[in-house]
Amino acid sequence: MAITITAFERSPDRGRGLARDMRVRWALEEVGQPYDVRLLSFEAMKQMQHLALQPFGQIPTYEEGKLALFESGAIILHIAERYAGLLPDDPDARARAIAWMFAAVSTMEQTIVELEVANILERNEPWYDKRLPAILGRIHTRLGQFSRRLGDAEWLDGEFSAGDLEMVSVLLRLRGPGILKEYPTLDAYVARGEARPGYRRAFEGQLAVFKAANPTP
Amino acid sequence: MAITITAFERSPDRGRGLARDMRVRWALEEVGQPYDVRLLSFEAMKQMQHLALQPFGQIPTYEEGKLALFESGAIILHIAERYAGLLPDDPDARARAIAWMFAAVSTMEQTIVELEVANILERNEPWYDKRLPAILGRIHTRLGQFSRRLGDAEWLDGEFSAGDLEMVSVLLRLRGPGILKEYPTLDAYVARGEARPGYRRAFEGQLAVFKAANPTP
Repeated sequence: MAITITAFERSPDRGRGLARDMRVRWALEEVGQPYDVRLLSFEAMKQMQHLALQPFGQIPTYEEGKLALFESGAIILHIAERYAGLLPDDPDARARAIAWMFAAVSTMEQTIVELEVANILERNEPWYDKRLPAILGRIHTRLGQFSRRLGDAEWLDGEFSAGDLEMVSVLLRLRGPGILKEYPTLDAYVARGEARPGYRRAFEGQLAVFKAANPTP
Repeated sequence: MAITITAFERSPDRGRGLARDMRVRWALEEVGQPYDVRLLSFEAMKQMQHLALQPFGQIPTYEEGKLALFESGAIILHIAERYAGLLPDDPDARARAIAWMFAAVSTMEQTIVELEVANILERNEPWYDKRLPAILGRIHTRLGQFSRRLGDAEWLDGEFSAGDLEMVSVLLRLRGPGILKEYPTLDAYVARGEARPGYRRAFEGQLAVFKAANPTP
């Protein structure tokens, strides 16, 4: 059954692979499933046709036959359950990998989104500099805890899993602000994720979309 | 196999059922599984013994034989997969219910946590009043979108599911600030959740813990 996902026609991240379609592309590349991409303008994302698929007007969505899904975490979990390669067979290990998926998109990403919201919407406000230390403090608390748990392990719990895919994807958002390199263990963990052939193919896929929409003169 | 969860010895929500053990209690009550609760002080939550179970030093955790899990979303999904009553049998409907679980704890809860962080940590800051409209604006955007999707339906997708359990639990956090009653559809949806016998039993369970730790003189 053909798989179609949606992505930004012009990603605000300028092809750096931070938009959430990247996570779904990566999951599909890891399990070796081909997929089509339907590109959406910011206007199209707010129209009824897309809102029927994604009630919050975001990307990505996932269509496969009669199934339509939204939320990158749920899409990745669906892919991981349907195709081999992203979840262990052992039921307990499988449940633990899913726990890391939830930890990535709620506990960890929440602190990172707080920084991004401040950087995008409040950078010129008089309180920006005063709030920043507390925002960074919350991020560093989480990174310290996660770094201690990961230790010197290659991946979170044995083989690479959907939990690592989500956590690497979330942590990547901290590379731009330079925060990630303060944690050599985590920087190396993220680099291991980026070095995977599936990640590379997914990254090139989203970059090609950005370049097509923004040709160099 | 006996199930043990962890919860606050003295919940900062003063027994209002907003701590995240409530969601796990509710899920266990819905599927009719008994469970033990191990109560933790704030000090114990930061100690190695607990951090081995929960790397971010939070509650709840879930132990069942050799399996140890954290993240309420992942715990609820595990319960829903293991016992009947929280996920539909149809695979597509099941994937959609899981999408609502992720939407609740990331897309929706993120905007609510932003308000809670501001209320707890920045209420006395000179910028609090100036930031508040933007924070509330982001919450209202999400509530409007969600309210339009829910419409007059009893639950999100047919029968009550783990997706409703998570979404009701997240929206309940807006009752205190008075925001929920601006959306009669959502207020009624949350009230339907609270009226379920499983919710009531779970609520009484967590309230009993709070009362035991805070006896009225």
